[in-house]
Amino acid sequence: MSLTPIENGSVTSPRGFRAGAVHAGIRSDTPPDVLDVTILIADGEGTTGAAVFTKNRVTAAPVIVSREHIERAAPRAVVVNSGNANAAVGPQGIADARATAEMAANRLGLSADEVLVCSTGVIGVPMPMSVMRGGIEAVEPRADGGHDFAQAIITTDTRIKECAVTVQIGGRTVTVAGAAKGSGMIHPDMATMLAFLTTDAAVEQDCLRRVIGRAVDRSFNMISVDGDTSTNDTVIMIANGAAGNPAVSGGEDEAAIEEAITYVSLELARAIVRDGEGATTLIEINVSGARSDDDARLAARVISTSPLVKTAVFGNDPNWGRVMMALGRSGADVEESRVTLHFNDICVLRDGQAQPFPREEAVERMKRPDVRFDVALGLGDGAATAWTCDFSYEYVRINGEYTT
Amino acid sequence: MSLTPIENGSVTSPRGFRAGAVHAGIRSDTPPDVLDVTILIADGEGTTGAAVFTKNRVTAAPVIVSREHIERAAPRAVVVNSGNANAAVGPQGIADARATAEMAANRLGLSADEVLVCSTGVIGVPMPMSVMRGGIEAVEPRADGGHDFAQAIITTDTRIKECAVTVQIGGRTVTVAGAAKGSGMIHPDMATMLAFLTTDAAVEQDCLRRVIGRAVDRSFNMISVDGDTSTNDTVIMIANGAAGNPAVSGGEDEAAIEEAITYVSLELARAIVRDGEGATTLIEINVSGARSDDDARLAARVISTSPLVKTAVFGNDPNWGRVMMALGRSGADVEESRVTLHFNDICVLRDGQAQPFPREEAVERMKRPDVRFDVALGLGDGAATAWTCDFSYEYVRINGEYTT
Repeated sequence: MSLTPIENGSVTSPRGFRAGAVHAGIRSDTPPDVLDVTILIADGEGTTGAAVFTKNRVTAAPVIVSREHIERAAPRAVVVNSGNANAAVGPQGIADARATAEMAANRLGLSADEVLVCSTGVIGVPMPMSVMRGGIEAVEPRADGGHDFAQAIITTDTRIKECAVTVQIGGRTVTVAGAAKGSGMIHPDMATMLAFLTTDAAVEQDCLRRVIGRAVDRSFNMISVDGDTSTNDTVIMIANGAAGNPAVSGGEDEAAIEEAITYVSLELARAIVRDGEGATTLIEINVSGARSDDDARLAARVISTSPLVKTAVFGNDPNWGRVMMALGRSGADVEESRVTLHFNDICVLRDGQAQPFPREEAVERMKRPDVRFDVALGLGDGAATAWTCDFSYEYVRINGEYTT
Repeated sequence: MSLTPIENGSVTSPRGFRAGAVHAGIRSDTPPDVLDVTILIADGEGTTGAAVFTKNRVTAAPVIVSREHIERAAPRAVVVNSGNANAAVGPQGIADARATAEMAANRLGLSADEVLVCSTGVIGVPMPMSVMRGGIEAVEPRADGGHDFAQAIITTDTRIKECAVTVQIGGRTVTVAGAAKGSGMIHPDMATMLAFLTTDAAVEQDCLRRVIGRAVDRSFNMISVDGDTSTNDTVIMIANGAAGNPAVSGGEDEAAIEEAITYVSLELARAIVRDGEGATTLIEINVSGARSDDDARLAARVISTSPLVKTAVFGNDPNWGRVMMALGRSGADVEESRVTLHFNDICVLRDGQAQPFPREEAVERMKRPDVRFDVALGLGDGAATAWTCDFSYEYVRINGEYTT
C-alpha cells in the first residue's frame, strides 16, 4: 500500500476525467483573466460518488440542490462558480441552482440529477443567470483541464491547491486526485471551503461513502483558520472505474483507497490552513492518551481554535499555559496530574507540573514554519490531530479593513 | 424596586465590610507601588455566601481550596494575591493555598474554613510563601479600603472595575457592591476573571445561592474577550446582614436583591469587556425569538466569540453575513427564512433575505463606541444578550509580542 505522489497532478490526472473553465463575469468587477465558471466531468457510465456538506444551519442554495441530486443519482459532473455564493437570496436561489444544473446537464448530455452545483463568492446578491448560461456554454472540458479547474474555484486564496497520488489496487495502478479552495472566512462574501476529489478506481457506492466520511473527519474536519464554517462548504468525490480494477468493496482494497484518499485530503486540508489569511505558521496539535478518539478530537479542535494559542505562535512564544487552558475548557476528560506537554519536542509540562526547559531554544523552534504541540493526557488510547495557523496583524487587516 | 447607583462606590460601601492591601512583592519584578496582596473581611457573625468557580477542567489550587471551604462554612473573608496564579505546581499548590487561608484566618481571628483564597498571575511558578506571609501580616483592613482592594486584584487591566448601588428591602436601604478584574486572557500568566460582591443585606443562604447563579449566568457568563476561560475564574459574594433587614428568603425581596446584584454584575462584566485587550468597541448581541432561552444563549455566545464578527466591528464593517454564519454554526435551532437582523437599528436581513440598506449610515453607526446587533429568530420566546469587544491590531500585539 505505498503511495506515489504525482508531480503537478490535478483532478484530471485520473483517467476519464475532463475539466474546463472560462471567465464569464459573474462579478462585474473582476478582471477578464479571472476564471469564474468551471465544469468537471467523469466520462463513462457507472460512476459512484459521495459528498459531505456544511453542517451550518444556514445553508446556501447550491448545497440544498446538490444534496437532493446526489441522493437521486450517481454524480457525473460538477459545475462550480466563484464570485457569487447564491446564498441569502430566498427561493430564487434554489431555482437558480436547479437551472444551473440543468444548463450544465444539457451542455454535457446528462440528466440534471447527475450534475452537482457549488458556488462561492458574495452572499445576498442574486446569481446573474444569463452570465452563468454564457459561461456554461463556453466551457470546453479537456483531459488537461485540471489546473484551470483548480484556478477557477479559488476566490481570495493566494495559491491553487491540488494533489494527486497513485496506488496499486486489484493489480491496477489507480490515481486519486483533488483540488480545493478556501483560505479562511476571509470575506464573508468570499467564504467557503470547497474540495473536489477524483479517482479512476472503481469503488462501490457504500464503500466510497464510508471512506469519504472517515477521510473528511481526519482532514477537512480537523482544520481551522478562524473557527467559522460557511454556508457553502462542500466536499465531493467521484470515482469512475476507468482504471479497470475490480470494484473496491472492503478489505485490503478499501484500506488502500482510503490511504490514498486520506493522503490527498490531508494535503489539501493543510494547504488551506497554510494559505489562511495572514498565516505565517502551520500549527499541528497532536492529542494522545485521551479516553476516546472523540475526546481527543474535541481537545485538539478546541486548542486549535483558541485565539490565545494562535497569537502566541505568531509571537514565537512557547506559552504552554494557553494550551492547558484551552485543553481544560474543551470538554474532553482531563486529569491535570496526568497531562504531559511537548512543544516542538521540548517537554514543558510533565504529569501536570511545569518543567524547567531551555527557553531560548524553545523560542527558536517556535519560529519554524511548522510548529507542533504534543498533548498526552495519560487516560487511554484516544488520539487525534488538528491543524491551524497563527493569528497575525495581517489577519486583522484582511478581515477588518475589508468593507462591504 | 428602583436602584440608586453610588458614585465612586466600592466593596466596602456596604456597612460592615473592611478591606486593605499592600505591596508584598509576590513577583520580584513589580514596582513597589503595585498592590499585590489584599484582604476583604465582613465584620460580625451570621454572614452568608455563595461562589461560582471556573468550569475549566484544569483548576488552580486556590479554586480547589476555596470550593472546599465554602462547602464547610459561611465565608467571612477573602484573601487575594496578584502576580502568581498558584496553578500547575502540583500538590504543593494545594498546601500553599491552605496555608494562605490559615495565615489570613490567624491574622483576622477566624477559622481557616471561613477564608476564601483567590490568586491571579503567572502559572507554573511556586507561590513565594514567605512573601505571602509578610503581605498578610502587613494588611490593615479599613472601612474605606475598597478602592485599594479593587486596585490590588488587577493584573494587566488598564482600569479598576467597581460598582455599588442601593435598593430598598424590608424597609431598609441596603447596598450591593462589587469589584472585578480581568481584561481577557491577555497573558496566560496573567489570566483570570475575578469578581467580588458584597452586600449589607441579610440574605438566606439558599436564596443567595439561587440569585448568584442567575446573576452570573446573565452577566459574567455572557461576556467573552477571546473565548478562553481560565483556571482561576471565580465570583464570590458575601452578605453580612448589617443593614438590619429581615433576611431575604424569596418573593419580592428576592426579586429586589436580584435586581441589584444583577445590575452590579452586568456593570462589572461590561467593564471587563470594555477593558478587553486592544478593545475599541463594546459589542452587544441580542438574540430573541429563539425556541428557548438556552438556544438564545448559545446563539448569542457563538456570535460573540467569532473572530470574523469581531474583526468586522474593528473595521466598522456592517458585515451581516458573518453574523449569519456564526448563527448557523451555533447549534441553536435556526430557520433561515425566519431570521431578521438589525445592525444598530438598521434592518439588513428580513425573513432570510438580504435587504437594501443605507451603507454609509450603517458604516457610520459601526464607528460608535457601543454597537448592537439584534438577531430575531422568529421561532419562539427565547431571548439572551451577550457582550464582547472587537479584535484589533493591538490584540495581536499584546498577545503575540508577550514572551514568556
